[in-house]
Amino acid sequence: MQLTGNLLIGQQSVPGSNGSIKAVNASTGAAIEPAFGGATLADLDRACALAWTAFDVYRETAPEARAAFLETIAQNILDIGDDLIERCMIESGLPRARLEGERGRTVGQLRMFADVVRNGDFLGVRIDPAQPERKPLPRVDLRLRHIGVGPVAVFGASNFPLAFSVAGGDTASALAAGCPVIVKAHSAHPGTAELVGRAVQKAVKDCGMPEGTFSLLFDSGRDVGQGLVADYRIKAAGFTGSRGGGTALMKIAAARAEPIPVYAEMSSINPVLLFPNALKNRAESIAKAFVSSLVLGAGQFCTNPGLLLAVDGPDLDKFIKAASAALNETAAQTMLTPGICKTYQSAVARAAEHTGVTTAARGVEAKGDNQGQSALFVTTADAFRKSHDLQEEIFGASSLVVRCPDLATMLALIESLEGQLTSALHIDEADYADARSFLPALERRTGRLLVNGFGTGVEVGHAMVHGGPFPSTADGRSTSVGSLAINRFLRPVSYQDLPDALLPDALKTENPLGLNRRIDGKLQLAK
Amino acid sequence: MQLTGNLLIGQQSVPGSNGSIKAVNASTGAAIEPAFGGATLADLDRACALAWTAFDVYRETAPEARAAFLETIAQNILDIGDDLIERCMIESGLPRARLEGERGRTVGQLRMFADVVRNGDFLGVRIDPAQPERKPLPRVDLRLRHIGVGPVAVFGASNFPLAFSVAGGDTASALAAGCPVIVKAHSAHPGTAELVGRAVQKAVKDCGMPEGTFSLLFDSGRDVGQGLVADYRIKAAGFTGSRGGGTALMKIAAARAEPIPVYAEMSSINPVLLFPNALKNRAESIAKAFVSSLVLGAGQFCTNPGLLLAVDGPDLDKFIKAASAALNETAAQTMLTPGICKTYQSAVARAAEHTGVTTAARGVEAKGDNQGQSALFVTTADAFRKSHDLQEEIFGASSLVVRCPDLATMLALIESLEGQLTSALHIDEADYADARSFLPALERRTGRLLVNGFGTGVEVGHAMVHGGPFPSTADGRSTSVGSLAINRFLRPVSYQDLPDALLPDALKTENPLGLNRRIDGKLQLAK
Repeated sequence: MQLTGNLLIGQQSVPGSNGSIKAVNASTGAAIEPAFGGATLADLDRACALAWTAFDVYRETAPEARAAFLETIAQNILDIGDDLIERCMIESGLPRARLEGERGRTVGQLRMFADVVRNGDFLGVRIDPAQPERKPLPRVDLRLRHIGVGPVAVFGASNFPLAFSVAGGDTASALAAGCPVIVKAHSAHPGTAELVGRAVQKAVKDCGMPEGTFSLLFDSGRDVGQGLVADYRIKAAGFTGSRGGGTALMKIAAARAEPIPVYAEMSSINPVLLFPNALKNRAESIAKAFVSSLVLGAGQFCTNPGLLLAVDGPDLDKFIKAASAALNETAAQTMLTPGICKTYQSAVARAAEHTGVTTAARGVEAKGDNQGQSALFVTTADAFRKSHDLQEEIFGASSLVVRCPDLATMLALIESLEGQLTSALHIDEADYADARSFLPALERRTGRLLVNGFGTGVEVGHAMVHGGPFPSTADGRSTSVGSLAINRFLRPVSYQDLPDALLPDALKTENPLGLNRRIDGKLQLAK
Repeated sequence: MQLTGNLLIGQQSVPGSNGSIKAVNASTGAAIEPAFGGATLADLDRACALAWTAFDVYRETAPEARAAFLETIAQNILDIGDDLIERCMIESGLPRARLEGERGRTVGQLRMFADVVRNGDFLGVRIDPAQPERKPLPRVDLRLRHIGVGPVAVFGASNFPLAFSVAGGDTASALAAGCPVIVKAHSAHPGTAELVGRAVQKAVKDCGMPEGTFSLLFDSGRDVGQGLVADYRIKAAGFTGSRGGGTALMKIAAARAEPIPVYAEMSSINPVLLFPNALKNRAESIAKAFVSSLVLGAGQFCTNPGLLLAVDGPDLDKFIKAASAALNETAAQTMLTPGICKTYQSAVARAAEHTGVTTAARGVEAKGDNQGQSALFVTTADAFRKSHDLQEEIFGASSLVVRCPDLATMLALIESLEGQLTSALHIDEADYADARSFLPALERRTGRLLVNGFGTGVEVGHAMVHGGPFPSTADGRSTSVGSLAINRFLRPVSYQDLPDALLPDALKTENPLGLNRRIDGKLQLAK
């Protein structure tokens, strides 16, 4: 499939004239064709105007129509075929199997949200029927549903060029909520972005959705991204990336005449806690699983285990020895971009030179350009407590083991940590009592707690939380993965004494959409 | 009941030493005893430390215990008896019947949240059971519940000294969510605040809740309020008041090392739309009802009808004539504070002198100090469009009628309005088609749409939205009235592969709390 390098503004394919970007072959560092023209502010304005016009129509599309639209996007992505995987492999350096899996996840997410739309529970329908006889005053008829917040800006993520990019989780949940989407493509995979963008653009047409339901913009600098979040027609933003990038967008959003929410997923070191009995009984098997998780995808996961805490002693020595042996054999892997690789290498070098930090192991040395060599460091509780910079995320396959004198110190260190996406406890039954005493501190700063596993597997389901207190995300009241992610783009509206003729279908007395409803506070299932 | 003038920090009653405030008799302007000592930053720190310590215990209290606590607060407020009403009448200038009604609402809100806690749906339990046989990878067990965000700062509102103050909607919903609360008392009703604060403090003790579950602070300036929102242990804030005050808190919250949500309810002019047939058939009865709503509580409601739009012509003349006649007879009413009254009088004087604005009617002239004389102004669509300041809320019994040349202009003016708490449509059946074309624009900027009524009655129920896009509130994704208000103070946490022994009761397989649960995405009612 031929790439055009064009912006997708509604149903148009338009050359961008504000500078240009080219993708880089992640393995070789060579620029690859074609050039993608950056959007001008006029292009941005047109995309926003189209999205604004589309909003009222799109948000009132019938559930079946909106669900079919999401499913059509999924099918159109599959229909691109292997061209998508091949282009994405070159741009991201990620291997085929991973990207095929990620495509499956992307398509699965879209289909899950189609089911969510059909199910209709996301509308949160509540009806408090009128009580004309109530004393001293009659009660009015009140009905509540949720509607989309408005057009949403989505920023593609470098580390999930399919599942958290143009038609990824943010886009799928915003579209499901009834919000038009304008995507700012990530400069690391513009070709992948165009291919997927065209699949969405075609679905808009195939399904007769309003033109402005979707646009895709390339940005040769930062003006388009910042301009999007600042535009008065944009009512929320979804972002996955660096802490610097995310907090910059949060500032722009807060400074608007009308502040808007930014759902930025930014930074997490995902502490792993080894409890004494598990460590004693399973040091070696945990070590192997830990290293597998650490090096997965060259460590470029938001949920990568960047910190490990355990009580010092021979069992921990055994763990470190086994983990080091496993890590020594891990091959260097191509990273997403030369910039990310360079940042990783400097961060690892800084950690290695850090007072109080020793290098336990390094992976096999890099043979090619842009490859990340994995790293395992060890430090003491004292050194960790004194150096806040040891808490900073190193994006890549690097982790830090902290030798704690006892469990109380381990808990105190947990209390010193910032917000996290995940926290993992490795425990045997004899550890349950100790683990229980850690739960409150972990719940307060973590979106997902897990036992005897690692956070790198992120199941896309209904009970998933991929989110957590700042700075792991901008807004710990939300998740960006799983069906609950739709809530980010909804707001409640109440209707008082409207005649049935004027009520939206979701609130009509006869319940034509067959929705579960909360009547006078009590949930009632449809039929 | 003797007032102490003391701060309530946990179970302590402590004299504040950082300056002091006295209440003012709203009718006479005279300062009244006792003096209330302002909190020092050390007092603030102690309240925050206690709240922080209380959080882990309080948030895990059993539903029945927490519900009983909320009910005990309600009962303790009733047990104060008439002392509360009398003190509140003096401090607020509001009449007895209104305050008795407001006490009923306050108590009703607490009891409603007790029911919400017992019901347990607010926990939003979701379970995606493990699928050990799934290919290619087994599926983990994932369970989700919501927990409180952490200690919450609540700012008492001047215009609801009971229902939106110390034990009002923000406090009730935060406590229901499992969050300790620190209230910054409003300086307009410190005596009322102390009485209610002691009722809450006693309930904490009566019910064996952790000491830091509740504190009440007085502020002789702005340091305590601002310090509360800035404190790292505070995780959300609830505020009802001016746009200036609310946006100042939003700025403080956004600038923290860990930004937090501020739920500020600030500013709304609540447009009333008269459609042609309703106007033709019912001009006079609508006019009477409009004036009744306008002057209710001296117009000091967030949902006061401050703007009325209709198509110009003889029917509108008839409406204005009837409304003017009714308004002419409305007595001047004591306002909440001399400051509020002065601001009201200047705003009304400015409106009267505004180019393009004519004064249609004034109420009976004020006879005492601190009384607000109601006002009705008329302008043209042109003048309204040109003067953004005519959109600014005048807090008090003042409203502006805009003569529109046609419905299209009326809709265009709606599109120029900022976010609103309520919008009211007055329609007969023959107006339905026209009204329908207004709904999208109204939904986009309003929390509650209502037909043939006025927004001033705010039913406390499950389907109420008292909230709307900025600047009506800081965060249009929420409501501050009704059971949905609890969502403001919750965040989701996911638990992966935890043994039953470590799961919170809400997520245990046997469902010991008897909760409705979403299993694999499908709602299942308990029993």
